[in-house]
Amino acid sequence: MAESVLMGELSWPEFEAKTKAKAPFFLPVGATEQHGPHLPLNVDVVLPTSVAVAVAKNVGGVVAPTIPYGYKSQPRTGGGQAFPGTTSLNAHTLSLVVRDVIHDLALHGVRRLAVVNGHFENSWPIVEGVDLGVREIRRDGIHDFVVLRLEYWDFVRRETLDRLFPEGFPGTDLEHASLLETSLMLLLAPGLVDMSKVPSDGPAKFPTYDRTPVKAGFVPASGVLARAQGATAEKGKWLFDDHVELITRAVLSEFGGQGA
Amino acid sequence: MAESVLMGELSWPEFEAKTKAKAPFFLPVGATEQHGPHLPLNVDVVLPTSVAVAVAKNVGGVVAPTIPYGYKSQPRTGGGQAFPGTTSLNAHTLSLVVRDVIHDLALHGVRRLAVVNGHFENSWPIVEGVDLGVREIRRDGIHDFVVLRLEYWDFVRRETLDRLFPEGFPGTDLEHASLLETSLMLLLAPGLVDMSKVPSDGPAKFPTYDRTPVKAGFVPASGVLARAQGATAEKGKWLFDDHVELITRAVLSEFGGQGA
Amino acid sequence: MAESVLMGELSWPEFEAKTKAKAPFFLPVGATEQHGPHLPLNVDVVLPTSVAVAVAKNVGGVVAPTIPYGYKSQPRTGGGQAFPGTTSLNAHTLSLVVRDVIHDLALHGVRRLAVVNGHFENSWPIVEGVDLGVREIRRDGIHDFVVLRLEYWDFVRRETLDRLFPEGFPGTDLEHASLLETSLMLLLAPGLVDMSKVPSDGPAKFPTYDRTPVKAGFVPASGVLARAQGATAEKGKWLFDDHVELITRAVLSEFGGQGA
Amino acid sequence: MAESVLMGELSWPEFEAKTKAKAPFFLPVGATEQHGPHLPLNVDVVLPTSVAVAVAKNVGGVVAPTIPYGYKSQPRTGGGQAFPGTTSLNAHTLSLVVRDVIHDLALHGVRRLAVVNGHFENSWPIVEGVDLGVREIRRDGIHDFVVLRLEYWDFVRRETLDRLFPEGFPGTDLEHASLLETSLMLLLAPGLVDMSKVPSDGPAKFPTYDRTPVKAGFVPASGVLARAQGATAEKGKWLFDDHVELITRAVLSEFGGQGA
Amino acid sequence: MAESVLMGELSWPEFEAKTKAKAPFFLPVGATEQHGPHLPLNVDVVLPTSVAVAVAKNVGGVVAPTIPYGYKSQPRTGGGQAFPGTTSLNAHTLSLVVRDVIHDLALHGVRRLAVVNGHFENSWPIVEGVDLGVREIRRDGIHDFVVLRLEYWDFVRRETLDRLFPEGFPGTDLEHASLLETSLMLLLAPGLVDMSKVPSDGPAKFPTYDRTPVKAGFVPASGVLARAQGATAEKGKWLFDDHVELITRAVLSEFGGQGA
Amino acid sequence: MAESVLMGELSWPEFEAKTKAKAPFFLPVGATEQHGPHLPLNVDVVLPTSVAVAVAKNVGGVVAPTIPYGYKSQPRTGGGQAFPGTTSLNAHTLSLVVRDVIHDLALHGVRRLAVVNGHFENSWPIVEGVDLGVREIRRDGIHDFVVLRLEYWDFVRRETLDRLFPEGFPGTDLEHASLLETSLMLLLAPGLVDMSKVPSDGPAKFPTYDRTPVKAGFVPASGVLARAQGATAEKGKWLFDDHVELITRAVLSEFGGQGA
Repeated sequence: MAESVLMGELSWPEFEAKTKAKAPFFLPVGATEQHGPHLPLNVDVVLPTSVAVAVAKNVGGVVAPTIPYGYKSQPRTGGGQAFPGTTSLNAHTLSLVVRDVIHDLALHGVRRLAVVNGHFENSWPIVEGVDLGVREIRRDGIHDFVVLRLEYWDFVRRETLDRLFPEGFPGTDLEHASLLETSLMLLLAPGLVDMSKVPSDGPAKFPTYDRTPVKAGFVPASGVLARAQGATAEKGKWLFDDHVELITRAVLSEFGGQGA
Repeated sequence: MAESVLMGELSWPEFEAKTKAKAPFFLPVGATEQHGPHLPLNVDVVLPTSVAVAVAKNVGGVVAPTIPYGYKSQPRTGGGQAFPGTTSLNAHTLSLVVRDVIHDLALHGVRRLAVVNGHFENSWPIVEGVDLGVREIRRDGIHDFVVLRLEYWDFVRRETLDRLFPEGFPGTDLEHASLLETSLMLLLAPGLVDMSKVPSDGPAKFPTYDRTPVKAGFVPASGVLARAQGATAEKGKWLFDDHVELITRAVLSEFGGQGA
Repeated sequence: MAESVLMGELSWPEFEAKTKAKAPFFLPVGATEQHGPHLPLNVDVVLPTSVAVAVAKNVGGVVAPTIPYGYKSQPRTGGGQAFPGTTSLNAHTLSLVVRDVIHDLALHGVRRLAVVNGHFENSWPIVEGVDLGVREIRRDGIHDFVVLRLEYWDFVRRETLDRLFPEGFPGTDLEHASLLETSLMLLLAPGLVDMSKVPSDGPAKFPTYDRTPVKAGFVPASGVLARAQGATAEKGKWLFDDHVELITRAVLSEFGGQGA
Repeated sequence: MAESVLMGELSWPEFEAKTKAKAPFFLPVGATEQHGPHLPLNVDVVLPTSVAVAVAKNVGGVVAPTIPYGYKSQPRTGGGQAFPGTTSLNAHTLSLVVRDVIHDLALHGVRRLAVVNGHFENSWPIVEGVDLGVREIRRDGIHDFVVLRLEYWDFVRRETLDRLFPEGFPGTDLEHASLLETSLMLLLAPGLVDMSKVPSDGPAKFPTYDRTPVKAGFVPASGVLARAQGATAEKGKWLFDDHVELITRAVLSEFGGQGA
Repeated sequence: MAESVLMGELSWPEFEAKTKAKAPFFLPVGATEQHGPHLPLNVDVVLPTSVAVAVAKNVGGVVAPTIPYGYKSQPRTGGGQAFPGTTSLNAHTLSLVVRDVIHDLALHGVRRLAVVNGHFENSWPIVEGVDLGVREIRRDGIHDFVVLRLEYWDFVRRETLDRLFPEGFPGTDLEHASLLETSLMLLLAPGLVDMSKVPSDGPAKFPTYDRTPVKAGFVPASGVLARAQGATAEKGKWLFDDHVELITRAVLSEFGGQGA
Repeated sequence: MAESVLMGELSWPEFEAKTKAKAPFFLPVGATEQHGPHLPLNVDVVLPTSVAVAVAKNVGGVVAPTIPYGYKSQPRTGGGQAFPGTTSLNAHTLSLVVRDVIHDLALHGVRRLAVVNGHFENSWPIVEGVDLGVREIRRDGIHDFVVLRLEYWDFVRRETLDRLFPEGFPGTDLEHASLLETSLMLLLAPGLVDMSKVPSDGPAKFPTYDRTPVKAGFVPASGVLARAQGATAEKGKWLFDDHVELITRAVLSEFGGQGA
C-alpha cells in the first residue's frame, strides 16, 4: 500500500527513508480567517494543503503539517482583524515558527523544501522566517538546503484567468473569499460551502492606503471583497489543475524528482 | 444540520454566534514527534484533537485549529530531538503562538478557553503562553477571560489504570509511544498504526537527570520508551471514555454549559 | 520666516506648537539598496522624503526623520541582498523601530501620522510596526491616534502611467531602478544620476516563486529589473506631481488640514 | 569628479570599488532629541555626521547613512523623554539596528568600521549592538572585521577645553545643548540656531541618582543643562578641528589609510 | 589553605586554574518564592546551593553564583504568583540568563557543567536555556561541552522516602514547603525556620488542571501544599546525604573527577 | 528579635507586613567579573549588597536578592570579557531580569524601590530595565511606583576622595579592582583579599575609543586598571561610611522613612 504523503502520517523510519531518498518536502502555511458568510474560516488551510498534497504525489514528496494560524488579516486584502474568528499571529511569531520548522527539518536531513503559502498576508513573515532559518542552519554547517517559497495562486495560466473573468481579472488582492477561493472550495471541500449565503455587497472600493483604525464601512460587511457569484466546482478544477501542474513543474525544475 | 464543532469549519457569522452564546472554546496543542516504528508522527495531534472534539460536542463548544508543532522532545520523555521527523519549536516561539491565539480569541469575544495539551514537553511553554496572553488582554481591558490548561492524559480513573496495568502503572513520563498512546491510536486512527512493528527494546532505564549531548544508546533505538505490546482499541476506548468524561465534567464545573 | 517642515530642524518648543496645532506628521521609511549602476543607494530615502516634504508643505505638516535602513531586498523586487551596498534590517528590527517611533510621537501629542514608504519590501514590516505601536499606545490610554500607511508610488493617475508606458505598464514590482525611479531621481537629485550608465540587460524574467539561495544569473547583473532608458526629469515631474497631489488629497480627506 | 563620501550617494559598483579598496567605513549614530529652545532636534544627527564626513574625506572613507533615532534621553544628560520632540528607541531596538547594519556591511566586504556616536545615551546600546553584530558575523565565518566605537566629543585637546572654559570644564554630561553643541551647530548649521532664544535657567544641579518618575522642576525648563551663552562658530571650529584631527589620527592608527 | 568551591570567591587566576584542571562546574538555579509562614522566601536558593557546594567539594568542582530568581510559581506546585514575596522571571528571561551564563563559561574553558535546579517550575526554562546555550556555543566552534541538568530532589533513595513517609510518599509536586524542604532547612539554615508557625491547612486537594485566574481558596491559605509537621534536622540529614551522595555519583559517572 | 533586612530571609507574611508598612525596597545588581589577582570575582556582588543592607537597616528597608550576573565587562572599564571568570549577560537579558523583578515587586505592593548598581557596565541595561518595568506596571494600572537608580560609588564626599587620592582622583572608570574596591573589600570581606598579589602593571593608558576585537596588551595583564597599592580596611571604612550615609540621605529624602 502506498504510504501517505503526509509527514504526520509517517512513522519515523518512514520519514527517515524519505529524507534518505532526497524527497522534496512541502510546508503549507495557512490562516484562520474570515472568508465571508458562505465559506469557513479554514479556507487558507484547506487550499494550500490540498495543492501541496497533490504536488507531493506528483513528485514523491512529503507534506509537513500545515501551520494553521497566519499573519494578521489586512482590511484591503482579507477584511482585517476585526471580523469574528480571524485569529492570527504577530509577524515575529510566524517568522519564528517558520524558522524553527526549517531548522529541525534541515537537522533531520531534508534538503529541498517548498513553502506553500495559502494566505496573502503571510508572504512577508514567511520570507523572513525562511531567511532566519537558512541563516541559522548555515551557522550549523548546512549549506545545501534549498527553499522555494511560493503563493499557490500565482501559478495559474493567463488563459484560465481569462476563462474565469471574461470581463477582466480584478487582481489577486481583491479576490478574498471571492470567485477563485469559492470555486476551489466547491471542488475540494463542498460540504463547507453554503452558496445560498454568498453576499452581494462587493466588490470593495479601497483607497491606495491603509488606515488605522479602520473606519466603519471600509470593508464590505460580508467580508467578501470581490464577487463570489458564479463560483462552481468546475471552475475550481480549472484553477486547481493549473496550480498543481505549474507548481509540480517548478518543483521538478528546481529540485528534480525523488531520488534525483 | 448540526454545525461543526471545528472552528475552522465555521463561517464567521457562525463563529460569532458561538461567542455570543458564550460557548467554551478548546485549543488543542500537539506536536510532530516520533512515536516509534508502529505509530505516526502525528500521535500528539490526533489524540488531543480527538479528545477536544468529543468534549466540545458534550458541552456545545468549539475546537480551534490544533497547533501541530510543539516544544522540543526530550530524551527521557519523548526520545529527544535526534529522532528523524521530530520537528519542534523553541519554547519562546510556542509560548508566543499560544499568546497570540489567546489575544485574538479574546478580542473576538471568547471568554472561556480550555487548552488541551497532547505532548508532555508542551506543558510549560503553554503555561507561559497562557500567562503572557492573559497579561496582554488584561492590559487591553479584558478581565473576565478564564483559561483551563490541562494534559488530557491526566484525566483517567485509577481503576482504568489498574485494569490497563495489572502489574502497576509505570508513570506518565515513560508512556511515550507505549500502551496508552498505541491503544488510543488503535481506537481513533487505526489505519495509522502498524502493530507488526511494535518494538520490544523497552522499557527505557533512565537516570534522574538530563545529559546534553545525549549519549549513544541512551534512548531505546525504537523510540518507544515503555511497552506497546498488548495495546488494543478496546483499551483505547477505556482511556478515551475516561478522558472525555472527566474533562467534560471539569469543563462544565468551571465553565457551565453553553449559554450558561 | 517659514519654519522648516522637517521635524529635525525644529526646536522642541516649535515641535510642541506643531502638536498643539494638531499638525499631521509624516514618517518616511526608506532603504539603503542597490538601484543599478546609474543610481545611488539612497533612492529609497530621497524619494519618499521628497514626497513627504512636499505633501507636508501642502497641509501644514511635519516630516519626522527618515528611517534610512529598510527591510531586506528581495531578488524579484529589488535584486536581493547580495548586491554590494544593500544594507538592511531584519523584519523584527524594522517593526520595532516603527513601533518605538510611533510610541514616542504619540507620547508627545502627535495624533495623525502618515507613514510614507519608499521601499517595496518595507511594506509588511511597517504594517506590523504600526500595529505593534498602536496596540502599545492604546495600552497607555491613547485611543485617538490615526495612522495612514502608504506606498508613495501607488498614488499615480492611470493616465500618467499610460503616458509613461505607451506600450503598457509592466507593474510596480519590476519597476526597481527603472523608468519611474530614474525619472524621479532626475527631477529630485539629478547630481546623483549617471544616465550614461543605464544598463540594458533587463527586463528581468522572473518565475512566480522565490528560491533560496538565489541562482547565479537569476537577477540581471546590473540590478535594474526593467528598463531605465528614456527616463527624464520631465517624466519625473509628472509622477511627482501625481504623488504629491494625490497623497495630499488623501491626507486632507482623512486628517483635515492643520488645526482642523 | 570626486565621488561622494556618503555611501547613500554611491551606486553599487562605486560601493563595491570602495570595499575592494579596503576603505574604512563610518556609521554615525544620532538621535532626535530636544536641545533647548535655540537648537533643533537634529543636533545629534548633524554633529556626528559632519565629523564622520570630514574624517572620511581625510582617510578615503565612506559614511553610511546616519541612524537618526537614538536611545532614550535621560533627565540628567539630555533632559529626559518628556520633552516634546524627543523620539527614541528602546535599547534592544537600537542594538538590533546596529547589529543588522554591521551584519550586512560585513557581508558586502567592509572590514573596518568606525561607529561614530553623537548622542550620549547611545553609547551602551551601541556597545551591545557591536557585540551582537560581531558575534553574528563570526558565526558566518568572518573573523577579520574591526570596529572602532567612539563618542566624537571625547576627541578634544585639553588645551581646547581650557580655552573654551577658562573657569573649568563642567564635564560632558552637563554639556547637553550647551556651549559645545551650540558652538558646533553655529559652525556647521548656523541656519538652525537661534541665539536669541538661548535660555539662562541652567546649569542644572542634579543629584547622583536617577528617579522615575522624574519630579517636576528636576530638569531646567529650557532643556539646556549647562550654559550656551558665549557660543560662537569660532569656538565650534576649535572643537570641530580637534574632533576631526584626533579621530582621523585614531582611524589611521587602527586602520591605516585607504588601500593600506 | 583550601580554596573556596564558590566561583565568586575565586580570583580570575584561580578560576583559570580550575578550568585548566578540567574541574566540573555547578550552576544552581533557585527562586524567590513563598514557602509558607514557617520558611523564608529563599528556600529554593539555599537548598540547591548547599547541595551543589557539598557535591563540588566531593569532586573538586566549582559552584557558579546561584541564579536567585526563578520561573513563575504555579498554584498546584508552589502556591502561585499571588503569594506576597514570590518574585519571578518570565520563562524567556530565565532561559536567556541560563543561555548567557553557559555561553560565557564555555568561552572561558569550562567544559563540564551541572545545572542544579532548586525550584520545580524552573525545570523547563532551564531545559530551553541549556539548549539555546549549547546551540550557540556550537556555532562558536565548541563541541565538547557537556551539561547535566538535574533537580536535586530526584536524587533520593526509595528507602529514604519510605522512612520519611511511612504512610506513602505523596509525590514531589505537593511537597512544596512541606516535610522535605522544612527538614532540609532545619538542617542547613535552622535560624530561618520557625516551626511554631507550621500551618495545618494542608494537604491541598488539586484538580488535574490549571485555571487562570486562580479561584479563591484554591491554594491553602498558608502556602504549604502538603504537611510540614514532623520535620526535623535529622530527616533533613537523611535527605541531604542522599542528594549529595547520589549527585556526586552521577557527576563522577558522567564527568570523572577533577583533572580526569 | 529583629527580622532580617534580607527579603530572602523573610517568610511571606513577614514580607507582606513590610509592604503594608510601605518599607522601601533595595535591589542590588552585581556582576561576576575579574577584579585582578588579589580580589575575587564577586566584588561587584559583595559591595552593592553590603551597602544596600546597611542603608536598609537605616531606613527600615528590605533588600531583594542581588542579581549576581551583570552586563558584559568592557576593556576600558573592567578589563573586558576575555578575562577568565568574567561571566555576563547580554544587555537585553539583564534588562528583562530587572523588568520582571520590578513587575513582581510592584504586583506585591512594593511602591518604593532603590536599584543599587555595583558594576559600572550595568548602568544602562538597568536604566532600560527600569523603564521597561515601569511602562509595564503602568499598563497594569500601577502609577505610584517610584524607583531610584544609583551607582553606590557616586555617593562619596569630595573630601573623602581628596583624602584617598592626595595626588588627584583618577576618575571612576579606571578604578576597577583598584584602591577603592580593594579597600572596601578589605573592610567587608577581608578573607577574600590577598594583598600579596596586588599587581603593579597599572595604571592603564587607554585611548578614547573602543576597539573590537581587543588588541593584545590593551588591558593590563593583571586586570587591575589603576593601582590597588595602599588599600586598607580603614580607607574602605571612609568610603563605606560615605556610601551608606549619603545613600540613606537620598532614600529618606525621596521616600521618607518606613511607614512614612
